[in-house]
This record gives sequence, C-alpha cells and structure tokens, in this order.
Amino acid sequence: MIFSKISVCFWYNEQVMKAFLECISCIIRQTIEILRRIVRSEKKRQRILAAVIGKMAKVDIHKMSPPEATKYAHDEIQRITGIKDLYKEPKKQNNREALQLYPYLKRLVRKARDPLLMAVRLAIAGNIIDYGALAEFDIKHTVKDVLGKKFAVSDYKRFRRDLKKTKLLLYIGDNAGEIVFDRVLIEELIKKIEVVFVVKSKPVLNDVLMEDAKMVGLDKVVKVIKSGSDFAGTIPSKGTKEFKELYKSAEMVISKGQGNFETLDQEKKNIYFLLKMKCPSLGRVTGFKAGDIILKRSR
Amino acid sequence: MIFSKISVCFWYNEQVMKAFLECISCIIRQTIEILRRIVRSEKKRQRILAAVIGKMAKVDIHKMSPPEATKYAHDEIQRITGIKDLYKEPKKQNNREALQLYPYLKRLVRKARDPLLMAVRLAIAGNIIDYGALAEFDIKHTVKDVLGKKFAVSDYKRFRRDLKKTKLLLYIGDNAGEIVFDRVLIEELIKKIEVVFVVKSKPVLNDVLMEDAKMVGLDKVVKVIKSGSDFAGTIPSKGTKEFKELYKSAEMVISKGQGNFETLDQEKKNIYFLLKMKCPSLGRVTGFKAGDIILKRSR
Repeated sequence: MIFSKISVCFWYNEQVMKAFLECISCIIRQTIEILRRIVRSEKKRQRILAAVIGKMAKVDIHKMSPPEATKYAHDEIQRITGIKDLYKEPKKQNNREALQLYPYLKRLVRKARDPLLMAVRLAIAGNIIDYGALAEFDIKHTVKDVLGKKFAVSDYKRFRRDLKKTKLLLYIGDNAGEIVFDRVLIEELIKKIEVVFVVKSKPVLNDVLMEDAKMVGLDKVVKVIKSGSDFAGTIPSKGTKEFKELYKSAEMVISKGQGNFETLDQEKKNIYFLLKMKCPSLGRVTGFKAGDIILKRSR
Repeated sequence: MIFSKISVCFWYNEQVMKAFLECISCIIRQTIEILRRIVRSEKKRQRILAAVIGKMAKVDIHKMSPPEATKYAHDEIQRITGIKDLYKEPKKQNNREALQLYPYLKRLVRKARDPLLMAVRLAIAGNIIDYGALAEFDIKHTVKDVLGKKFAVSDYKRFRRDLKKTKLLLYIGDNAGEIVFDRVLIEELIKKIEVVFVVKSKPVLNDVLMEDAKMVGLDKVVKVIKSGSDFAGTIPSKGTKEFKELYKSAEMVISKGQGNFETLDQEKKNIYFLLKMKCPSLGRVTGFKAGDIILKRSR
C-alpha cells in the first residue's frame, strides 16, 4: 500500500478530502523508514514508533486530511528527535543524483522531435522521485519507463495552445531531485514566456525548499518564491502575499505531483497537473489507477 | 512493505526470530484489508482499527515473533467482531479458483520433460497465493511467471535422490488455493511413496484446515492430519501426538511457505522447503531477496 503526499486543505475549506484508513499503515511504514534513516538506536526507534502509533490510535482519521494525519506522525518524530527537516539528506542526495542526469535529460530534449513534449514527459518522470511514496527507485530506469508509457490523460494539445496565450506561468514544484527535471522543462518554457517557480516555506517530507532551488541552480534560471505552505500541498488562499499576487496574475499554472493536485484540483484557474498517481486509495476515488501518468487541465 | 507469515516459536524456544519494526505497518495494513472485507460499516472498521493500533502501540515488538505480534491484532479483531475465521471466504474462493486450474496444472505436469520437477515448480507457484501477504494476484500469470523463473536455491537433485530412499513423506501444507497445487505434486509423489498431508488445527490467516483438504479432495488422495498449531507455522515439539509420531517416522518432510520455513528451519530433520520469499525484512536476514523462489534442504 502506498501512501503519497495527498495534500488537501485541512483548515475550513469545504473541499476537504478525508484520509483513508489505508493512510495509517502507510504513515507508520513511512515513520519506520524515517526512523531507520535518522535514528541509530533500535531501542530509540522503537520508542518513537510506539509514540507515533499511540498518537495514530487516538486520531480520528476521517476527520482530517491525509497530510494532517501525516503531520501528527512527523510532528511527534520531530518533537522527540529535535530534527526539523526529516528528509534533509535524502533531498540532497536526490538533487545530486538528478543533477548527474541533467546533461542526459538536456540531450533527450534536444534530440526529440517535439522538445516541449519530451520536457513535459521528463518533468513527470521526475515526479517518480518521491521518498514519501517509494522506498527504492532507479531514476534512469524510471525515465525510460515513463518515456515509453502512455498518458492516462493528456491535455497536451491544449497545454501547448494555452502557452501561446501566456505571459506568466507559475510553476509549483514538488520534490527534491524532481526539481532538476522541472528545470529542464522550465528552460524550454522560458524561451517564450516568463516562469516563476514556487517552493514550500518549511520542511515537509521531501518537498522542495528555497535551498533545493539554489542547489540545482534554478534560482539562476527563473525567479523562485515561497508558497507559504508547510504541508505537502498548496492552498492559494493561505499563501504568502507574493504568492497570491503572482497566482492571480499568472495566466497559467503548472502543478507538480499528487499533493499539489489534491489541493489545487478544485481551483478555478487554468492549471495543468503533471503527476504520476501513486496512491491506490486516492486512485480509486479519482478514477485513476496507481501508476497512471497524468497531464490534466483543471476543470 | 510486505508482511508475510513469518512464523516462529514464541514459547520457550531459543530459536526465536524476533519481529521487525516493519511488521507493525504490515500488520496494520493486513488489519485494514481484513476489516474492509468482513466489516461493512466504516465507523466500525475505524473503531476496531483504533483498538488494534492501540494494542500495537503497547506491544514490545522485539520481545516477540512476527506471528505473535500478528496474533495480537487478529485476536482483537476476533474479540470485537466475534468472527473466528477471518479468512473463511477468501480461503473458499482461493480453493475454487485453484480448482478451476487443476486440469491445466495436470496437463502441464503430463507434458513436462521432467514431470516431478514441473510439479515441484507448480507447488511453489501455488505458494504465491497468500492473502496474508498479497492484496491482489493473478494466479495464471503467477504460474507462468514462476515457471519461467530460476530458483535462488535448488536442491532438486538431492530431493529426487532422497525420494528414492523414502517410504513415508510428511507434507506440511500452507495456504488455501495453494493446496490444489500441493495435490498435483502429491499425486506425483504417491506413485512411489506414501504421503501424509498436514493442516492447521485452528483458523489462522488463510492457512489450510481440514475443511480445505476436503474441499479440494485431498482427503481422498492421501491421509490428512492436524498439526496442533493455531498460528502461522509448525513446531513439531508442540504438535499433536499423531503429528509427532509421523514426523518422527517420516524419512522426509516437505514444508510449504514462509511461515513453516521459519519455524522448521532449525530442525534436525530431512526437510525440503518449498516457498517464495515474500517479506523483504526477513529476506535481508536470511540472505534471500523478496521474490526468491526456493527449494532448499534443511541444514
């Protein structure tokens, strides 16, 4: 069972997706993965895990969204260990690994019959790199695999057409590592339009922060702003002033990954969602299957 | 993360394999699967899940074996729901599905260059059918897949040689559905030797009971006895009198599946383990990988 960053408003939004029972086993699985990585002593791991499980036993899962439930677990780990960024090392490692692929990705785009489509496909391939959802992965294999796969939904023609009417595009990033793939797509986009890249304000899972944008040199390519979010999704109404203004003025938005898809799906805005569906439970609700490759325009 | 029926003595046996932290998320995942199947009301599912999680939070996982930890969860489900056999329907369904394949399996054996080897391979293929470890499966695909795969360990030559010196073989069954595949192998074996088939004494996961042996007609082919075990493994010293006697007099034992492998691995007896390794955590400990096809003689 895969739990991914299904991120939905857990404030006073009516469009709240509630967590599934299955989220609990995934949150615990994720907790064990984190503990194996950041805690050396098996006894201490066990103690923290017991504390997290104790919290989860009391949580009314149907009264909150998946990221809220996840936050319960992560807050507990952070509280006991004193570590604020639970994915600091994996994020750096992902960035490093993806950066090594950068010349290869650029070559793929350059040689493609439709370089923009190739860049879009690569941006989705980059979305597979998600420590929150996958324990192990092989980037190169994934790149080839995704390039060979068909989209479950593809609004690419409209995407291409819309770009021609666009001056400013807001590009909402998702994960570390993936951000290198985003850079490749962004470098195609900025040949014609202005792009602003959006990162999270505080550490949450392996989501990109300002330091990731700097690490992969994206800050030298486009303007990078913080969204204001500290959970695995983006809610425009709760964003920073700068984010809200740019979100309003942008004719087009690219939203990467499942967490952003879940939080932005109901927005009345010209948003293109690029993601791979990772959670089977969420897949069932939305009509997509886990593993589906999606390039979907907002309703 | 897959939790399988890693069954180890949790009495006063020194050879006790302790549970992994990872077992907890798998036990909870398994609990959710069971609840989705046997409980209609989502609220009730949630309440039982909370009770199970509450139990698991208090469990010192490193002081018990995986099946003992599993038993905590299952006992709680059984206590609250009043249902004693949590896998009653899936077991029947597995038997029915596998029975439909029976003529196909017999044909495969008949046409094989080495019918015994084919029957052994099929018996392992049958081991994939494990509701305790896999949420979804496709039997025919699995059959073909396993037949195409190489063994990670194969003591087949010795197995074949030992059979020639054997009068009585004790065949310790594992799961429903799989038992039809066992029947196919047993029908090859009884051309030369006597075979007694062993089932569990009480319901535990999808392990075979006397009723399963009857449902697939195995009781018409060989003698079927109960082992005395009510957990997902077999410990000879704790068996019924009949089991102990036959275990002692049999020159050879076939042990099916991971749970039996874990409980019988340390026995000083001529045992052949037929299984697919399903749990990655256990795989790491034993040197096998999850997915490995194993035909291994006891040490």
